[in-house]
Amino acid sequence: MVPVTDPALPVLDLAASSVELTRQLCDIESVSGNERAIADAIEASLSVLGHLTVTRDGDAIVARTAHGRAKRVVIAGHIDTVPVNDNLPVREQDGFLVGRGTVDMKGGVAVALKLAAELTEPPVDLTWIWYDHEEVASHLNGLGRLAANHPELLACDFAILGEPTSATVEGGCNGTARIDIRLHGVRAHSARSWVGHNAIHDAAGVLAILSNYVAAEIEVDGLVYREGLNAVGISGGVAGNVIPDEAVVSVNFRFAPSRSEEDAITHLREVFAGYDIEVTDLAAGARPGLDAPLAQDFLAAVGGRALPKYGWTDVARFSALGIPAVNYGPGDPLKAHADDEKVAIAEILECERGLRAWLTSS
Amino acid sequence: MVPVTDPALPVLDLAASSVELTRQLCDIESVSGNERAIADAIEASLSVLGHLTVTRDGDAIVARTAHGRAKRVVIAGHIDTVPVNDNLPVREQDGFLVGRGTVDMKGGVAVALKLAAELTEPPVDLTWIWYDHEEVASHLNGLGRLAANHPELLACDFAILGEPTSATVEGGCNGTARIDIRLHGVRAHSARSWVGHNAIHDAAGVLAILSNYVAAEIEVDGLVYREGLNAVGISGGVAGNVIPDEAVVSVNFRFAPSRSEEDAITHLREVFAGYDIEVTDLAAGARPGLDAPLAQDFLAAVGGRALPKYGWTDVARFSALGIPAVNYGPGDPLKAHADDEKVAIAEILECERGLRAWLTSS
Repeated sequence: MVPVTDPALPVLDLAASSVELTRQLCDIESVSGNERAIADAIEASLSVLGHLTVTRDGDAIVARTAHGRAKRVVIAGHIDTVPVNDNLPVREQDGFLVGRGTVDMKGGVAVALKLAAELTEPPVDLTWIWYDHEEVASHLNGLGRLAANHPELLACDFAILGEPTSATVEGGCNGTARIDIRLHGVRAHSARSWVGHNAIHDAAGVLAILSNYVAAEIEVDGLVYREGLNAVGISGGVAGNVIPDEAVVSVNFRFAPSRSEEDAITHLREVFAGYDIEVTDLAAGARPGLDAPLAQDFLAAVGGRALPKYGWTDVARFSALGIPAVNYGPGDPLKAHADDEKVAIAEILECERGLRAWLTSS
Repeated sequence: MVPVTDPALPVLDLAASSVELTRQLCDIESVSGNERAIADAIEASLSVLGHLTVTRDGDAIVARTAHGRAKRVVIAGHIDTVPVNDNLPVREQDGFLVGRGTVDMKGGVAVALKLAAELTEPPVDLTWIWYDHEEVASHLNGLGRLAANHPELLACDFAILGEPTSATVEGGCNGTARIDIRLHGVRAHSARSWVGHNAIHDAAGVLAILSNYVAAEIEVDGLVYREGLNAVGISGGVAGNVIPDEAVVSVNFRFAPSRSEEDAITHLREVFAGYDIEVTDLAAGARPGLDAPLAQDFLAAVGGRALPKYGWTDVARFSALGIPAVNYGPGDPLKAHADDEKVAIAEILECERGLRAWLTSS
């Protein structure tokens, strides 16, 4: 395969360390919607490698081995970031790389790129995926688009997402549901409030339920998922002299992957029995799937410890296809999207070591 | 005095019935800010009358007798309306005049104009006031402007506002206070809600206080004022996946005229002890002042019955000057501002009869 060499193209050096590669990837600004340059650079760097077949869909790049192994593993990560906020180019400080994308998730992308180039004879077939539009609305998500356009490219026995987990395996993810609870009153002048019925006052019952709710901790496949039920919005009021005839409480329920979408909504209808409920958003979680043999091998190779993932991630897209999937990548997830986003260099190296150990064992 | 006769000027016939005059006044559209034409018409109709001295300030008209009587009475009303909503010109139906302004308050203005022209030798000196900008922000109020520019014109022993009271005397008015109660939390991702603190959930306590509050009924000068404490607004929320760090409940307290502004705020601080409170609006009520001899005479002449006024009206401006003042005018206040605003013709005639009876007694 003849490399495309455009002198204007940012160059990625896949022979450099994963730390240096993280820096190179971050310094190619790629806020969601602006992934073309970084996708071009990734595609160019891979197209010179004889052991990979590269496919591009929009700004998503898929690189596959085809050794005829018994099992296939997907290792995936997104290449977009949330908006830059005066935190590029990347700088190194006190053992950290500091800047937009270092945590979410170009550290994980760098580790994958380096190993994709290096591991010419892995013991399982590998499908490496780097995709666009993860940080924006779900219908734009590049992995979702790949699943629709090229479902065969996602086929595998086990999947790893390089989302930040502080170099720990985090299994599955909680589901998420959003509902609007609407309270109905009768409008009146506030000087004669007894003529009306105050819808905001009726929200007292909803907020009391939320305040007193004790979120469950639910064990699924050996991991304990902590749920959460929270108001994320409240609104009501017509004018300063009017008894309001409507109030709306928006509630977000994060539910363990043992609950189906239907179970989650049934639970909400029980918790808020008697209230007017509208479901506005619903996505199932993902079971950790750590009982799968490939997952057990992977877990053993990278240290043996697994934690539950609380936030919804694209592992749920694999889970929905019946494929066990975990998150494993460098960076503290609490620093994702933060203006002082920074990844510990040691975590990048630890993930590189862990993945290599697993993918070079027999 | 030579009348100004502009052929383009709407003409008011002060010799017509008060019902016909109400219709003429309503059909001169005078939404707040657009009172010039109606003020011109009122000024022109009065300027031909020898027993009145007419003063104009902006679009407020003051007409005074100067007979040297021992007592002086102000009879006042506003000439503006809330916006028209396809409810002009006025039509007559089933004993009502139907249309914008019929209730609030051109029926009262018509009665006053007719009597101002007719009563050339009243037993008390009279100051008739018609003013602009009552239906909008308080700082624009024409009566407030007159009080600032020409305080001598408001001087009197008793004042009557022709606001709609269904032709019953309504004494004084409740005061009104508005506060914002601010709840403070700690922002976090809703997938890890236990890291944060939900400010909306903390509003549960505020709403419970409001729901359980039993409003007082307080007797002042023989009239019973019903208070009210209500949320008139609530807001909070950052995004659908964020634990909110702030929520605000806006509360309106309508308080009996026996409470001072300070008393009202002290009461609110007791009711919401421990919460972060900001006072955003505060206006004292007005005691009914029905124990004043002139008020007693007036009450006897118009039927002897008086009720408390709940809504804040401009009687409070007189009360603040130490002048007893009452509301007395045609129209059901619940129809004020309504799209089907309509006044019973009988109430217009009853108010005309009542005021004439009082102002022609010795």
